[in-house]
Amino acid sequence: MKPMIYLDNAATTKTAPEVVDAMLPYFSELYGNPSSIYTIAGKSKEAITASRETIAGVLGAKPEEIYFTAGGSEADNWALKAAFEAYKGKGNHIITTKIEHHAILHTCEYLEKERGARITYLDVDEDGVVKLDQLENAITPETILISVMFANNEIGTIQPIKEIGMIAREHGILFHTDAVQAFGQVPIPVDEYDIDMLSSSGHKINGPKGIGFLYIRKGVKIRSFVHGGAQERKRRAGTENVPGIVGYGVAARRAAETMRERTQKEIQLRDYMIQRINAEVPNCKLNGHPSRRLPNNVNFSFEFVEGESLLIMLDMEGICASSGSACTSGSLDPSHVLLAIGLPHEIAHGSLRLTLSDETTKEDIDFTVDKIKEIVKKLRAMSPLYEDFVAGKTKSMIQ
Amino acid sequence: MKPMIYLDNAATTKTAPEVVDAMLPYFSELYGNPSSIYTIAGKSKEAITASRETIAGVLGAKPEEIYFTAGGSEADNWALKAAFEAYKGKGNHIITTKIEHHAILHTCEYLEKERGARITYLDVDEDGVVKLDQLENAITPETILISVMFANNEIGTIQPIKEIGMIAREHGILFHTDAVQAFGQVPIPVDEYDIDMLSSSGHKINGPKGIGFLYIRKGVKIRSFVHGGAQERKRRAGTENVPGIVGYGVAARRAAETMRERTQKEIQLRDYMIQRINAEVPNCKLNGHPSRRLPNNVNFSFEFVEGESLLIMLDMEGICASSGSACTSGSLDPSHVLLAIGLPHEIAHGSLRLTLSDETTKEDIDFTVDKIKEIVKKLRAMSPLYEDFVAGKTKSMIQ
Repeated sequence: MKPMIYLDNAATTKTAPEVVDAMLPYFSELYGNPSSIYTIAGKSKEAITASRETIAGVLGAKPEEIYFTAGGSEADNWALKAAFEAYKGKGNHIITTKIEHHAILHTCEYLEKERGARITYLDVDEDGVVKLDQLENAITPETILISVMFANNEIGTIQPIKEIGMIAREHGILFHTDAVQAFGQVPIPVDEYDIDMLSSSGHKINGPKGIGFLYIRKGVKIRSFVHGGAQERKRRAGTENVPGIVGYGVAARRAAETMRERTQKEIQLRDYMIQRINAEVPNCKLNGHPSRRLPNNVNFSFEFVEGESLLIMLDMEGICASSGSACTSGSLDPSHVLLAIGLPHEIAHGSLRLTLSDETTKEDIDFTVDKIKEIVKKLRAMSPLYEDFVAGKTKSMIQ
Repeated sequence: MKPMIYLDNAATTKTAPEVVDAMLPYFSELYGNPSSIYTIAGKSKEAITASRETIAGVLGAKPEEIYFTAGGSEADNWALKAAFEAYKGKGNHIITTKIEHHAILHTCEYLEKERGARITYLDVDEDGVVKLDQLENAITPETILISVMFANNEIGTIQPIKEIGMIAREHGILFHTDAVQAFGQVPIPVDEYDIDMLSSSGHKINGPKGIGFLYIRKGVKIRSFVHGGAQERKRRAGTENVPGIVGYGVAARRAAETMRERTQKEIQLRDYMIQRINAEVPNCKLNGHPSRRLPNNVNFSFEFVEGESLLIMLDMEGICASSGSACTSGSLDPSHVLLAIGLPHEIAHGSLRLTLSDETTKEDIDFTVDKIKEIVKKLRAMSPLYEDFVAGKTKSMIQ
């Protein structure tokens, strides 16, 4: 088997060995239920407290504002559904964007169909950036919540979160951000950015799968999404996933401590990769903002190429990548994000996302770009559309 | 430090070392997102499929009827809320019992207050058994769901689930059971018992915390609780907790394979403990059904004793036990379960739950009973109520 080059770190990451090491004692030794009162249970409780403090520290938040969940999707569902229930006396209008993760979009659809919410989906520009004037114009006296993702999971574009937070604050509207891709990658000072709620997920930052958190600013009156026992200050029921929480804490500390150095290196490799692909592969287009993007995100469309075939052939070379998001691969629909930035269906279908990690090397990038060149050439050689293009019968849609 | 005697296996269990071993490769080696299409992700997907098949096998269910969740509470919330939404066209009436776990009770309260549901809470008899005639009488044309727990988490009483299933089926009403305490402890043939939905949790059967499942019979038209990506056949969004799912599968297989031998041993020790306490500690009362109870559950009330003090003094001897359920310890209210079986407040406050595991020995039991005798004596010596009782000024409330 060829050595693996893993370039799908936006889908999920390797759990760092030090994270696993930190989790291990909480499986078979310190396994007490944190809600119990005896000594061994106290150790579980202390471990949760320590993890909560670490994560709060990364955000400049208070520990009691961090509520552990089973992941980013639960956090997104909680934020939107509970905010709707808590503030529906004031109004039923929610503003979000067309490029959110499905955990937001499908929750909005649910609230619209089942609960009487009215949703405005903001457009984005061709780089994937929300239009602030459109946001301001969308606000009505009924608007109770603005939910805009911090950074997009497919194209990596980082939104003007501080400006959005200011607008929300000025109008007295709750502001939630899905920071699943951004937490641990870029600094997120929740107070400075006027963020009221923030969703995050452990497995995107070398923590374990099955753990996330929702930050809820003190004073935000949303209640439970999962009802039951008194865990998480009566706001999220269920026996705490102690090993998961411990692992998440270690991963968050690690991500924060290494952020500066790691992302500098990733940005360098990212831009090197973008530059090589742009220079060496004809008829391609970078998706997402050229500079206001996640340090580790590269997303290209290749004309006259099926994304799926490209992925399969990259896999045969040991390269792990994705077309859209992992959550929707398997679906034949083109990415809603790529359509929202204005790509035609044909181009959206030929897209490739490559997301780096701190383990990615220049050799990995060079090998991958070489293979992309080869494969794109091979796939185009089999494409009747490309034949027409070469023969001058059709024009390129992107250049 | 004294060696620990862990008798709180209803609160949580030690993750079995073989379970942890099975999980380990899925953290840092086979860490691919199951939704991705490359080779390493395929391994995650296969592992989930294998675990789903194992669990389905234990229930006599089809693999596609098992939906992984973050635990029992999420499964309970999902079953009730989604059933209410799916069937509210038919009616708004749900029947449950007074002794359910708070994941059911608080979800019912939510549905009642926020969503217009009408809930009937059935009484139980002095052994904690649901009254079937009361159940039949409670059914109306508006009844859309019956939710009765398989076995009680505090007093261990096992409900007549087969009979309840028959009643539900006869009336064409959906039947959900919270089997968090029962799965892996007693056989649960979902078809024979006419169970339509069943909640379960990994960490109660030596699996990891943070994983559970909801069994949903094919044809039951409930939708999602967590909206988002297309995971779990579009019914439960969020990147799968692959290590947790793998661990749960191993734990379920282990529990099923050892069930007969393990529970026979536990029943013997349980009944030996019950008999010794009954014989050697005056003014005590066994709570729950004498025989139709979980193999590992012992629950006693000791008159003239504060449960909390008893727990703390047992902890000082290295014995881990609980008063009510772990989820509500910390609360000063007496257990709703003990009140429902007719205990007066004073007696409900002096209760102790001891739940055995396959590692529990006769020596553990003897040591624990000896300590209970000592401590109860000591605590009573400090009680003015006990003084009055001994002086003949008051009567015992339980004997």
